[in-house]
Amino acid sequence: MEELEKENQLYKVRHSLAHVLAQAVQKKFPNVKLGFGPPVEHGFYYDFDFGDEKFTEEDFKDIEKDMRKIIGQKQDFVRADFDEKTVLAEIAKFPKETYKNENITNLIERGETHFSFYQNGPFIDLCRGPHVANTGELPANGFKLSMVAGAYWLGSEKNQMLTRIYAYAFESQEELKQFLDRKALAEQFDHKKLGKELQIFMFSEQVGKGLTMWLPNGAVIRDEIEKYAKEVEFQYGYQRVNTPHITKKELYLTSQHLPAYEESMFPPLRVMGAEGEVEEELYLKPMNCPHHHLIFDHAPKSYRDLPIRLAEYGTCYRYEQSGELSGLIRVRCLTMNDAHIYLRQDQFEEEFKSILQMYKEMYATFKLTEFKFRLSIRDKENREKYKGSPEMWDKAETMLKKALDDLELDYYIGEGEAAFYSPKIDIQFRNLMGREETVSTIQVDFLAAENFNLSYINENNEEERPIVIHRAPLSTHERFISFLLEYYGGAFPTWCSPTQVIIIPVNDDCMEYCQELERDLRAKMVRVKIDTSNASFNKKIRTNTIQKNPNILIIGNKEVEERTVTLRRYGFQEQIVSTKEEFIKDLLEEISTRKMLREPMGSLL
Amino acid sequence: MEELEKENQLYKVRHSLAHVLAQAVQKKFPNVKLGFGPPVEHGFYYDFDFGDEKFTEEDFKDIEKDMRKIIGQKQDFVRADFDEKTVLAEIAKFPKETYKNENITNLIERGETHFSFYQNGPFIDLCRGPHVANTGELPANGFKLSMVAGAYWLGSEKNQMLTRIYAYAFESQEELKQFLDRKALAEQFDHKKLGKELQIFMFSEQVGKGLTMWLPNGAVIRDEIEKYAKEVEFQYGYQRVNTPHITKKELYLTSQHLPAYEESMFPPLRVMGAEGEVEEELYLKPMNCPHHHLIFDHAPKSYRDLPIRLAEYGTCYRYEQSGELSGLIRVRCLTMNDAHIYLRQDQFEEEFKSILQMYKEMYATFKLTEFKFRLSIRDKENREKYKGSPEMWDKAETMLKKALDDLELDYYIGEGEAAFYSPKIDIQFRNLMGREETVSTIQVDFLAAENFNLSYINENNEEERPIVIHRAPLSTHERFISFLLEYYGGAFPTWCSPTQVIIIPVNDDCMEYCQELERDLRAKMVRVKIDTSNASFNKKIRTNTIQKNPNILIIGNKEVEERTVTLRRYGFQEQIVSTKEEFIKDLLEEISTRKMLREPMGSLL
Repeated sequence: MEELEKENQLYKVRHSLAHVLAQAVQKKFPNVKLGFGPPVEHGFYYDFDFGDEKFTEEDFKDIEKDMRKIIGQKQDFVRADFDEKTVLAEIAKFPKETYKNENITNLIERGETHFSFYQNGPFIDLCRGPHVANTGELPANGFKLSMVAGAYWLGSEKNQMLTRIYAYAFESQEELKQFLDRKALAEQFDHKKLGKELQIFMFSEQVGKGLTMWLPNGAVIRDEIEKYAKEVEFQYGYQRVNTPHITKKELYLTSQHLPAYEESMFPPLRVMGAEGEVEEELYLKPMNCPHHHLIFDHAPKSYRDLPIRLAEYGTCYRYEQSGELSGLIRVRCLTMNDAHIYLRQDQFEEEFKSILQMYKEMYATFKLTEFKFRLSIRDKENREKYKGSPEMWDKAETMLKKALDDLELDYYIGEGEAAFYSPKIDIQFRNLMGREETVSTIQVDFLAAENFNLSYINENNEEERPIVIHRAPLSTHERFISFLLEYYGGAFPTWCSPTQVIIIPVNDDCMEYCQELERDLRAKMVRVKIDTSNASFNKKIRTNTIQKNPNILIIGNKEVEERTVTLRRYGFQEQIVSTKEEFIKDLLEEISTRKMLREPMGSLL
Repeated sequence: MEELEKENQLYKVRHSLAHVLAQAVQKKFPNVKLGFGPPVEHGFYYDFDFGDEKFTEEDFKDIEKDMRKIIGQKQDFVRADFDEKTVLAEIAKFPKETYKNENITNLIERGETHFSFYQNGPFIDLCRGPHVANTGELPANGFKLSMVAGAYWLGSEKNQMLTRIYAYAFESQEELKQFLDRKALAEQFDHKKLGKELQIFMFSEQVGKGLTMWLPNGAVIRDEIEKYAKEVEFQYGYQRVNTPHITKKELYLTSQHLPAYEESMFPPLRVMGAEGEVEEELYLKPMNCPHHHLIFDHAPKSYRDLPIRLAEYGTCYRYEQSGELSGLIRVRCLTMNDAHIYLRQDQFEEEFKSILQMYKEMYATFKLTEFKFRLSIRDKENREKYKGSPEMWDKAETMLKKALDDLELDYYIGEGEAAFYSPKIDIQFRNLMGREETVSTIQVDFLAAENFNLSYINENNEEERPIVIHRAPLSTHERFISFLLEYYGGAFPTWCSPTQVIIIPVNDDCMEYCQELERDLRAKMVRVKIDTSNASFNKKIRTNTIQKNPNILIIGNKEVEERTVTLRRYGFQEQIVSTKEEFIKDLLEEISTRKMLREPMGSLL
């Protein structure tokens, strides 16, 4: 509730500041014509037609100064209301404002009968409000003009191109500063930027859009995450399987992906027969579920075999629109740590708890602390897009809700966020800019057992349908690694860092000992490199720090003599001197327990 | 040379035995007409037209007995030669032999002018020979009639169906026995049979032909092999990458896979544009090379960066004809531990040695001891199917030959066995039935650097082309695991066995201790199961032995009391009693060093 009020107040502040901006612009450019000026995420904008004049970012300073003056003048916002007849008389007073006039005409045509104007000082605008009572309430240092851009009137390229002035706006200078700091960091930590600097991944025009090529550094991160997830899942009783990336159309008819999910799938690959007929149609798999169901079904199961947990790091293909592709966030080739659990009704509660327990264990390893549960259910208005009977859906939604309630977890409802075959619980994280992302999911599916005729033999020797849980704790590699890149600011903990130890020899005499160190570490499977570049010592330190290498060993004559190492760890001030053996022992301990010594840089905001 | 003579002698024996068979058949079935009777692998066959009579396997005993009698009679083989005229007079003496007559007529039409007949005892046959001098030389117990099958005259289904009698034949009873033993074992160890019994893999009509679905047990073996290969390759300086399974047509035009390799590729997947035009064509990758070349090329390289070794467990798709698909031996989806090494000319020799060294290390782990090197070069008669200049090919072939010579390795030449883009060294293993399979390969490629315009900056600051080595030590997962399944007879060493330890409680009182054992082992990542089935103790031992579980722990009251375990290892007679701690310590040691305690069952032949 407080959140909502806060947002309302923020909405009023931003909306009012838009009017203040327009007033300041009108003062400097008396011939300007007004467009729209709404609040938006992080601030507001206002559209103007400057006619023959030109507004540039060089005008920002003057306008901001004048806006502060208007705030200092403590102008009251005064509302006046009109109906569809009286409004015409009112607007006739402003013949220059052709856009406002056109807007009112359009609104009347569409049957609008209530209109309000807000005036503060000399500035009047057609506007629904609400606003603050007085410009004196506005934060004189809580806003900042940010950008000038072109924008077509009413969003149509057939219309006049207007000038849009963007601003960030918050309720206080402090909040604005926080936002700007966060934004600067988000830009610095942008996964596309870091992905390039740290050589994590690449795309190639010759390979295709949205088809990620993982460079050696990225492949290390993928492999380490996979190894970790496999270890944890082993402890939780999962078995791994491996299935192909293409499959006959028939399977997706059985699963009802066709036609329900066809839009998101790549077109089929048609094998032609000798007579030019289509011999078979194969699809790239968009999900791993159907294959796992076939594997469950390949041999008879007894109630004593359940739960059966089939897991796969499966690579799937989805045809995202090319305009929506963005770095690793939206791609066309995605690898996810998918699993499907086949269980009896009476096993659901325990299994659900066990899944959540495992998720929490995984989050702790990655130092992921802030998340929200979302219960994603059907869209009430559009029920026909969901497969399976309403009774199934009611049952599945109720089970998930009950599980959340029983565990006393805080959650919110995401209407229309269900998969086409089942409701789910999504676990939502915020990225650096506050955008919500689904990192983990748990789905309860009654449909799969029907579609694939899955069954087990129960205690009374009868066939019974298992429940199917779909779950993915660590999103796709693509999303999860892009998230981690930003959350860690590119500085990965030693265990999953592409290079784990960099050795810098102070001079050539130290090389032999450095090579000994390298050999010993590599034999223990440590990813180690000697920096043999021609750069100066200081340059080497700098370069390896920019590369966010977690451990830099500095080896000079003293270290050689005493058979020690001097360790600089990323993000720590102090250097640690220890014997070679101690260092190796501590390092292996840090790696094998997957310790993260620092807080993630993204969590410090 | 000795090998060849041996084969010639074996050829004569088999050929002569075919005549002896025909003589025996003629005696029992005087109206029979003769077809052809050649030696084949493992023996010989003879085709007969029995007219209204019927020959079945029940006749084998009589015929074999009569064959031995003929051998005992020491009949001489006597040759008579004819030209195209005299042969007609000769064959006219046998009007009943319509097939022989037809054959001679055909041969004369095709211009044949030399004909020979061989007679032994009462039996005469048109035949090129050679034969042994006398039936007394034939091994009376070195052959065995094996099968009766139908076969069309001259292989055409428009012709008469004849009865084909197959026989195995060797030079001695001992050799026959050896063969039959090997054959029985090969049938028992057939990977398709074992794959099913041990639940390693499955196929599904709904997924598609040749598209393997790896069941949990198979996925364990894959994962263990991958983990092992990754560890070894890490020590040899390889970096891993990860690339998508589909790629735009353009890439395969650059690499010249299109059109050179198109026949082996799946048809493209066509993304259609809004106007019904083909927006892009994407192919499933048949090889990983082009993607790796792009990754090499994504950032400039210096001579000091080389060699760069990019490795990937890449899954590729090849459209094998459906008639050629067979278990895991020929599939359409194949995952191989591929790597591409980019290096300078002067690094070739050392790198080649290093690769061989690594291969030998890997073979030792899997106890693969018998292999041959094949230098696979161009087909002299069909040079246009190879891409790149003849000079490149000469150079590459010479380099590989020199490397083999320098290392004094025994090898043979495989003409026409080169890849379309480079010659290669194949390392050939024999399966249980003696069929040769390529397990490993090393290719030297000058073409890739040209096609992809790959370069590095040499010591003189000039651009230079790297050599590219393609190498794959462990075939594809599909072929390698099918090979191992047969070679190991399904009994994998503990480190890569699907289940590593089975615990059998003698009674319910032992269960708590069994669970403690299970917990302790699982915490150490050991794949352990308690056999909680309702079966009797003996049945449990039997079932788990049939399942080839490497370690069975028997836990009775004595073990609980003394906190010991009684261990039965697959393939060993004696049981080992040790304390729980000793057992776990030894087991972890066996696993981490990837020991194979027994000789592979296939190596015992």
